[in-house]
Amino acid sequence: MRKIYLYNIPRRQALQRFLSAVRLPRRIEKVKTAGALGRVTAEPLFARLSMPSDHAAAMDGFAVRAERTFTANDRNPLQLLPGEECLPVDTGEPLPPGFDAVIKVEDILMLPDGGIEILAPATPWQHLRSVGEDLVAGELLLPALHRLRPHDLGVLLAGGITTAAVLAKPKAVIIPTGTELIPPEEKRHRGDVPDFNSTVIAAYLQQWGAETVIQPIVPDDQALLKEAASQAAAEGDLIIIIAGSSAGRSDYTVHVIEALGEVFVHGVSTRPGKPVILGQISGKPALGIPGYPVSAYLSLEWFVRPLIYRGLGQPEPARERLRASLGRRIVSEIGVEEHVRMAVGCVDDRFVANPLERGAGITMSLVRADGLLIVPAESVGFEQGETVELELFRSSGELRNNLLAAGSHDLIVDLLATALKEEGTGLTLSSAHLGSMGGIGAIGSGQAHLAGVHLFDPASGEYNTPYIERLLPGKKVHLINLAYRVQGWIVPPENPDGVERIDDIASKGISFVNRQKGAGTRILFDHLLEKAGLTPDEIPGYEREEHTHLGVAAAVSAGTARIGLGILPAARAFGLEFIPLCEERYDLLMNDHFYRSGAGEAVLKLIRDPVFQKRVEAMGGYSMRDAGKLIN
Amino acid sequence: MRKIYLYNIPRRQALQRFLSAVRLPRRIEKVKTAGALGRVTAEPLFARLSMPSDHAAAMDGFAVRAERTFTANDRNPLQLLPGEECLPVDTGEPLPPGFDAVIKVEDILMLPDGGIEILAPATPWQHLRSVGEDLVAGELLLPALHRLRPHDLGVLLAGGITTAAVLAKPKAVIIPTGTELIPPEEKRHRGDVPDFNSTVIAAYLQQWGAETVIQPIVPDDQALLKEAASQAAAEGDLIIIIAGSSAGRSDYTVHVIEALGEVFVHGVSTRPGKPVILGQISGKPALGIPGYPVSAYLSLEWFVRPLIYRGLGQPEPARERLRASLGRRIVSEIGVEEHVRMAVGCVDDRFVANPLERGAGITMSLVRADGLLIVPAESVGFEQGETVELELFRSSGELRNNLLAAGSHDLIVDLLATALKEEGTGLTLSSAHLGSMGGIGAIGSGQAHLAGVHLFDPASGEYNTPYIERLLPGKKVHLINLAYRVQGWIVPPENPDGVERIDDIASKGISFVNRQKGAGTRILFDHLLEKAGLTPDEIPGYEREEHTHLGVAAAVSAGTARIGLGILPAARAFGLEFIPLCEERYDLLMNDHFYRSGAGEAVLKLIRDPVFQKRVEAMGGYSMRDAGKLIN
Repeated sequence: MRKIYLYNIPRRQALQRFLSAVRLPRRIEKVKTAGALGRVTAEPLFARLSMPSDHAAAMDGFAVRAERTFTANDRNPLQLLPGEECLPVDTGEPLPPGFDAVIKVEDILMLPDGGIEILAPATPWQHLRSVGEDLVAGELLLPALHRLRPHDLGVLLAGGITTAAVLAKPKAVIIPTGTELIPPEEKRHRGDVPDFNSTVIAAYLQQWGAETVIQPIVPDDQALLKEAASQAAAEGDLIIIIAGSSAGRSDYTVHVIEALGEVFVHGVSTRPGKPVILGQISGKPALGIPGYPVSAYLSLEWFVRPLIYRGLGQPEPARERLRASLGRRIVSEIGVEEHVRMAVGCVDDRFVANPLERGAGITMSLVRADGLLIVPAESVGFEQGETVELELFRSSGELRNNLLAAGSHDLIVDLLATALKEEGTGLTLSSAHLGSMGGIGAIGSGQAHLAGVHLFDPASGEYNTPYIERLLPGKKVHLINLAYRVQGWIVPPENPDGVERIDDIASKGISFVNRQKGAGTRILFDHLLEKAGLTPDEIPGYEREEHTHLGVAAAVSAGTARIGLGILPAARAFGLEFIPLCEERYDLLMNDHFYRSGAGEAVLKLIRDPVFQKRVEAMGGYSMRDAGKLIN
Repeated sequence: MRKIYLYNIPRRQALQRFLSAVRLPRRIEKVKTAGALGRVTAEPLFARLSMPSDHAAAMDGFAVRAERTFTANDRNPLQLLPGEECLPVDTGEPLPPGFDAVIKVEDILMLPDGGIEILAPATPWQHLRSVGEDLVAGELLLPALHRLRPHDLGVLLAGGITTAAVLAKPKAVIIPTGTELIPPEEKRHRGDVPDFNSTVIAAYLQQWGAETVIQPIVPDDQALLKEAASQAAAEGDLIIIIAGSSAGRSDYTVHVIEALGEVFVHGVSTRPGKPVILGQISGKPALGIPGYPVSAYLSLEWFVRPLIYRGLGQPEPARERLRASLGRRIVSEIGVEEHVRMAVGCVDDRFVANPLERGAGITMSLVRADGLLIVPAESVGFEQGETVELELFRSSGELRNNLLAAGSHDLIVDLLATALKEEGTGLTLSSAHLGSMGGIGAIGSGQAHLAGVHLFDPASGEYNTPYIERLLPGKKVHLINLAYRVQGWIVPPENPDGVERIDDIASKGISFVNRQKGAGTRILFDHLLEKAGLTPDEIPGYEREEHTHLGVAAAVSAGTARIGLGILPAARAFGLEFIPLCEERYDLLMNDHFYRSGAGEAVLKLIRDPVFQKRVEAMGGYSMRDAGKLIN
């Protein structure tokens, strides 16, 4: 059953092949104009009625017959009788029959009998809106294939078009596959994977203008999948099969599409997104979409978005482009077009873009992404500091107010992100977990506004300052205390291995999970090892690295490790035992430009805010006694 | 009852006063995550579960125990027994207990017994996704006040958040007022005005994130309006009263808001949009919005859009800005900030912006607008050719493909606009009705790509060419025939005045409606007058001008004129009598750059397309016998 990719062709070529082979139907439906916002006109729409439909007053005042007023001037005031010679009118009111001009209220002396006195004649048709001044019967109001905006509904209703012929939304049928899948609302057991992809895919398609139906989950069974796909082809305009698009043991999608229709493309030379299938069933576009979330959403965007926009006759909205300096080197394989999610901010008045996690399974990389860097197939990547062009997910205006936080991961930085929004500062915050050493480096090279650091220097007994002096000599930076926090051993509930001291890990051979190189917690662990006279090769699992406290706790919780070093809230998140070890200082390092900016002030103000401090301390394991204190 | 404006203050100052006095409430509601697209988080959302929740294969292949594989190398192939020592796994599958590495299918020799042979050892944790690699329990998934995008729904579901706390949509209650109003679907009688404003306003508010309720139409009666407004304040978060915001006879809105609450601002120094009322009822923002559509929508955008975005804690999306050359002079009053709707295109590789109709009642000016030019209060306007900065309604990328048509109005040009969309050319077309002479001028000054002209030259008996030679000497342009069309008298059904010749208008004193100066049809009329030995002052209504054929027909249909000169389709649109007079040539004048461009080719191809030609001839009064022929 295992088979290799049929093709492995460039993305644009794949799209061309797909679009030249299939298209979505253009069905017409009649809808109430009042409910047609966002729909696309199926035919040119001409006004049936004029607006205004009568001559109407364009000013508040009195309607008159112009001819009757010709003798009025400031030496010969003219009085007009109410009813026969003048009638009050408000803006928009139709002119009484026989009247042909309006005199503004400001140019009138009102008489007790309801008549008026004027000092100047009216010219015929003055201060009137003529019939059809806004729109006139027979006029083209909107062309075909026009997406209806709010004021378009207005002109249609004004022109007497109360039902409009619009294009029916193409109907996409989404088929989630995989024996391991369960509906996302169900309780998970070991091995269950929630099917969140269907919801996300449906949401994307709806945004682009399609109607969606999600079929029940199909287990990995070729016959069942075939049945589901035929049914989808009978009921929908577009079939999307999620997962099983690769060449694995239970990847039946390609066989099913082949059996029921035709496969045009299997595999494109991109990363992520390679194992996509483009084909047709009963002449209807049918896609096999990879199960990895990032691959899934990127391939939707490459192949389904253009299909839907074309079907509706609309130009695909282009993303804003931005040139930015690359914060970290990106290495990419020749022959593969790579799509790297990027965090983007404006540091020292210069846009900087930092690559996020590149794995196709990391949905959070899409959540965190401010933009996309496309590394062409013929490129081996880009060097740090190189200027690259990005496609933005958020506007460059917004990204000007996006703070880049680097360095050590701490939940307080996350709380800071949410508090900045709640305070209405207009600031957002993107966090990269680079570890304390990485954070100092990022501040040094202008890749971040601020970085969390907690580096103990055994020689001096001091935190952070010695490292900064050594790594950023002569650079003007500012160090501000954020919190003191307790580091300790994270072990299974009730500490089954009876860990008391670091020696126990070596002597009892307890499986350890470490943090990545450059992380403050790892440096702390190495210091503890040295103090205990131990070497790394005495610690089983020393080489296994996690990038966050929560990652360490997750490993202990899953039972793949029995001990790790980290902070209390991480242990708590998984209901694990926490054995306190020492209190450490966690500071924020800021570059000078940011420190002096309004944004820097807003961050400091927040850190010093007692409400914020209480919120942090409520998590447990933190002391905010010096929060906001300038260290140097 | 008549009163003057309470204030007349700058727009930004009015907004500041309004926003500092009122705000929308932030109510929290729980919604199913799957249906929460576009909603705004009410609190930071942390993962409850990890994803993956078990160690899972990151590749298709076999799960192994790394320790068992250490002896494998290419001189010592190692065989592993199925079940105990190796198990097949596909990407995403959880690792069987006790196994700690995956070997890729490509690195394996499959054995008949279901076991495998390998030539290299596996390192522990290779090709695995660890627990929480995508997201880990306790991790901040999304901050508060974050608008949910499709992939955000994915991480929430993956993290076990199946219901999310989001901000309730603020509820706006819209009150249409005016005795003349009828629901837009109802049949209109004399004096009836369809209430399309409510629909448009509701659509805008929904786009911005509010929920809307439209109350029944309230006639001009202060007590009834007061009742409606109190009820709205009881049920909604935001009250919008449409019309009656001015200072006319039946403008009760300001009195009602004053009586029930407080008026902060009445009147802002803008055009359109001046008579707006900003206030509160029961502490809830209450607005009186002008009844003129353009004023209504602009004031919504100035005052309601920021209110809603602030309420939801979101930045207001900024419009793209574009610098363009002004096609025609704009004169504006000092002390008034004017918002001019503009048509924008790229002529000769240079962006050009032409002002559209400036009346507050012309909804079509919003439909036609590609952008907005704001003339500051302290400015008297801009000169033709000056560079101005616009706020765009469509992207500059799209506008690069927007054709500017100037000159004489003809329905064929409208059909061309719709056919260009239907053909999928990616081109759109904005039409300005400047008359034939205006069209030649626009081509001469680079304000338009193409212009419709039909100018008879009595001296030579020729059409168009003599005018172009005289007005654009030495300029390289191209003249292409679009159609021949019949001009004739447009009169009421059955020609009650018995018009036969132009002399009848003068001798019988039949009330005439003329076209604007520079229009080909007016030049034709003047020529006919001269030929008949008549002068303008012998024609009653000669000074009354309409800008289109349909406008002339509308005036005759409404009975405010008894005769006009125009084309057959206009007469037909109103069921009027048409007395043919002569056939005239209607050409398209193109500038050289456009003529040679791909867009120019697309237009020519369409004009020469027999399907398009049949569609035109079906309207009546047209001959396409030379359509697309190059005249010079």
